[in-house]
Amino acid sequence: MAPKKEKVDANKPALIGITAPKDEDFPSWYQQVLTKGDMLEYYDVSGCYIMKPGSYSVWEKIQAWFDGKIKEMGVQNAYFPMFVSSRVLEKEKDHVEGFAPEVAWVTKAGSTDLEEPIAIRPTSETVMYPYYAKWIRSHRDLPLKLNQWNSVVRWEFKHPQPFLRTREFLWQEGHTAFLTREEAEQEVLEVLDLYARIYEELLAVPVIKGHKTEKEKFAGGFFTTTTEGYIAATGRGIQGATSHCLGQNFSKMFGISVEDPKNDGEKINVWQNSWGLSTRVIGVMVMTHGDDKGLVMPPRVAQYQVVVIPCGITVKTTEEDKANIVDGVMKIEETLKKAGVRVVADTRDNYSPGWKFSDWELKGVPLRLEFGPMDFRKQQVVAARRATGQKDFLALADLAESIPKLLEEIQEEMYKKAKSSFDSHVIRVTNWEDFVPALNNKNLVQIPWCGVTDCEDKIKERSTRQDTGEEVDERAPSMGAKSLCIPFEQLEGIIPGETKCPACGRDAKVWCMFGRSY
Amino acid sequence: MAPKKEKVDANKPALIGITAPKDEDFPSWYQQVLTKGDMLEYYDVSGCYIMKPGSYSVWEKIQAWFDGKIKEMGVQNAYFPMFVSSRVLEKEKDHVEGFAPEVAWVTKAGSTDLEEPIAIRPTSETVMYPYYAKWIRSHRDLPLKLNQWNSVVRWEFKHPQPFLRTREFLWQEGHTAFLTREEAEQEVLEVLDLYARIYEELLAVPVIKGHKTEKEKFAGGFFTTTTEGYIAATGRGIQGATSHCLGQNFSKMFGISVEDPKNDGEKINVWQNSWGLSTRVIGVMVMTHGDDKGLVMPPRVAQYQVVVIPCGITVKTTEEDKANIVDGVMKIEETLKKAGVRVVADTRDNYSPGWKFSDWELKGVPLRLEFGPMDFRKQQVVAARRATGQKDFLALADLAESIPKLLEEIQEEMYKKAKSSFDSHVIRVTNWEDFVPALNNKNLVQIPWCGVTDCEDKIKERSTRQDTGEEVDERAPSMGAKSLCIPFEQLEGIIPGETKCPACGRDAKVWCMFGRSY
Repeated sequence: MAPKKEKVDANKPALIGITAPKDEDFPSWYQQVLTKGDMLEYYDVSGCYIMKPGSYSVWEKIQAWFDGKIKEMGVQNAYFPMFVSSRVLEKEKDHVEGFAPEVAWVTKAGSTDLEEPIAIRPTSETVMYPYYAKWIRSHRDLPLKLNQWNSVVRWEFKHPQPFLRTREFLWQEGHTAFLTREEAEQEVLEVLDLYARIYEELLAVPVIKGHKTEKEKFAGGFFTTTTEGYIAATGRGIQGATSHCLGQNFSKMFGISVEDPKNDGEKINVWQNSWGLSTRVIGVMVMTHGDDKGLVMPPRVAQYQVVVIPCGITVKTTEEDKANIVDGVMKIEETLKKAGVRVVADTRDNYSPGWKFSDWELKGVPLRLEFGPMDFRKQQVVAARRATGQKDFLALADLAESIPKLLEEIQEEMYKKAKSSFDSHVIRVTNWEDFVPALNNKNLVQIPWCGVTDCEDKIKERSTRQDTGEEVDERAPSMGAKSLCIPFEQLEGIIPGETKCPACGRDAKVWCMFGRSY
Repeated sequence: MAPKKEKVDANKPALIGITAPKDEDFPSWYQQVLTKGDMLEYYDVSGCYIMKPGSYSVWEKIQAWFDGKIKEMGVQNAYFPMFVSSRVLEKEKDHVEGFAPEVAWVTKAGSTDLEEPIAIRPTSETVMYPYYAKWIRSHRDLPLKLNQWNSVVRWEFKHPQPFLRTREFLWQEGHTAFLTREEAEQEVLEVLDLYARIYEELLAVPVIKGHKTEKEKFAGGFFTTTTEGYIAATGRGIQGATSHCLGQNFSKMFGISVEDPKNDGEKINVWQNSWGLSTRVIGVMVMTHGDDKGLVMPPRVAQYQVVVIPCGITVKTTEEDKANIVDGVMKIEETLKKAGVRVVADTRDNYSPGWKFSDWELKGVPLRLEFGPMDFRKQQVVAARRATGQKDFLALADLAESIPKLLEEIQEEMYKKAKSSFDSHVIRVTNWEDFVPALNNKNLVQIPWCGVTDCEDKIKERSTRQDTGEEVDERAPSMGAKSLCIPFEQLEGIIPGETKCPACGRDAKVWCMFGRSY
């Protein structure tokens, strides 16, 4: 559906809505909702973007929530430098191999060449762990739980995408050390739960929790857990946030050990975790909920939850009515502010109500309240939901209670809609001939899988779309499918020694979710 | 005074207190209080440091306070990239000249040389203003008020110092644009007031507010206001935080203009400000309050405000008494937590109370509560103030009220002490022969000044300490004096056309504060 066009006088800029439909030209649609919705600005260094208050405020809400939760878990914040020497960066081999191609190097300061090039952190394991080795001298220093809110740089040469793949991005990275494997593994899952709750409870975006395969796990780690999302418009999976158990691998490389409190004279290398959630979440939220009118913001993270717009003022409106409406709008704003609602009254007198409707729809404000002469007489407001368009009449007297309730209802509706879409696009496949067609129909696929990396490689190769004459949705991606995760919640039906992997014919071990992905 | 030495058994690490007295070896003292007090760790890239939770938590408290205040002023947070192209960086000439020698350049990503070197922001004026030009199309888009919390890089080649001069540092930078000069100037002062309040009300550090001279103002700006502090141990001044009016200089360079709402067809270049406060504040706080036992933290920003330590348990103590003490300590902790006090109970059983006293003194916890068998019987605690050593007996029943009150009293005491030291070291000088001796005695100096940059240059030259045979405090610095600020609160006594500048003999215009400085 095309955005409403409003007549505006020649001195005022016409509002240009979204001109690329989400269903037909998703890349242009994404760019337009972000820029026209005031979330993001393109920047003159490729792969870098400006987060405007519309998106940064979402990040602030996520920060406040998550920071509170991890502090309850005993995590403390710290700040480590963004620079790392090549000697330290290269200490853990698998790890550095994973990141080396994307590392940005500072080689000059002013007009002076540096003696040694210095890397900008792509992540901070190697920045931090030499100091963990210094600080952790006894089992009494454990657990050590630090987190930092910072930006990291990964100079990817693939096509950049706002929020999803950017050369600098904001995130948090937690780095913890424990005496035992049990403690470490428990924390990995606790943090993953928090990540899932950020998606589901704050952003109204469903995710599937699971383990990454050996091939897809964090470089140098022991195992990786993940929250995996789904972008319906493209049929692609998307990695949400990951919580890694690093095992004792880094602690061996960096010499982080303590005396075993149970066996005199024995040394134990500590068990470590690292976990990170980035501004990528904002991109997933936008892709999930946005529509052809613009952004659709979940109430819990929206910069503004409610906009109040005076309506129905014409040349015939009496001065008294006008005053009543403007006064009423300001009172509604005040009432809602007191009730803790993030509300803005749009009393600009140089734009028509229709223009304002479209403008706030672009920005995705979850609830619009309209207040005109008739509403004044009936002591009500018209409440229009951004996500569904549903309109309700609400009594002025109850707004302090009814609006917060309605916002929660909207949040719930948005989640349910996204969940039902996700659920209907995860297809169970047991015969290879159904695999690629399922992908082509913009689905993710679960198969009973053998667990062998080699099979994973072949699946990728065999699922890259070639011209087969088969009729497919041309908007579906054509790259090969990767394993997304081995879901914690396993489907039933694998009979050991009997069920075969549909990709290679070996014995199936677990259900694994594959998909074309971001 | 040397730190208390405690006997500890051979399996436990001895606590090594501060071994360099603040009065005798200030640089070593500073390094020791920071590292032994668990604030900071030295890092293997020169000029970079790790902020441990002890210092980062102070920054978090400053952030929470200041962020709330600027949001009340209508400022919104955003995030701009850390990278800036050389073309954009070089757009404003005076500005780039000020920063160019310290700019770090990325020239390589992975193993690929970049086509053009890319700078890491030393500050964000030139990063942001091309976009201000794009976003500000009409006077209705004004004021625009954005802030970001980030890190910037200034690759200085001078001797680095933790918090005071570091190659990467954390700060906030506010960038605002207004239609009129009046609005801009009003905001500059409002923000400067907030900066002064951070120093005085949160960190208990007195500052003097004033204007920077032409020579010392922000490169490319119109005028700079500043909060200037004083480090008694070295007799040096220190710039606290600065709030700049940029005037229309950048808006002309970057083409940020709107139609004059009062004169049809006329263009107005917007009036801009930028203002920043960095983690330097933490260094000033440490230098001001710390003593030979370690850090002394002001209660309002201390990570822990109170430590509770069980005392007086000996081999003769009955099991019942022991249980009462441990139980009592936990109850005190609980009571204070409920009262909103940041409290920690130190119940480690492998350290003596004396060892713990010294350990928490190193960390600067403002108040220590001791609780032993006698206290249990009297239903009291012993409260020892870190800053003064004063001990009070407080009734257990009232702790929820008495402790918060006592913490505020400590905060006040700390400020008063620092203020009295600062006040007694700003010397009014009207004859040149008194100028250098005053500096040598570790003072800042106010003179009736001519206002000419050339005179400022000569003052610097003439006040560089040479061997004159004069008896001076050898610990006082020897570099030349810079102008620190023209204080808003002007002394009296300048008679126009009569009072002469003691440095050059020209007519004095204003009182200006000079000093050797950081």
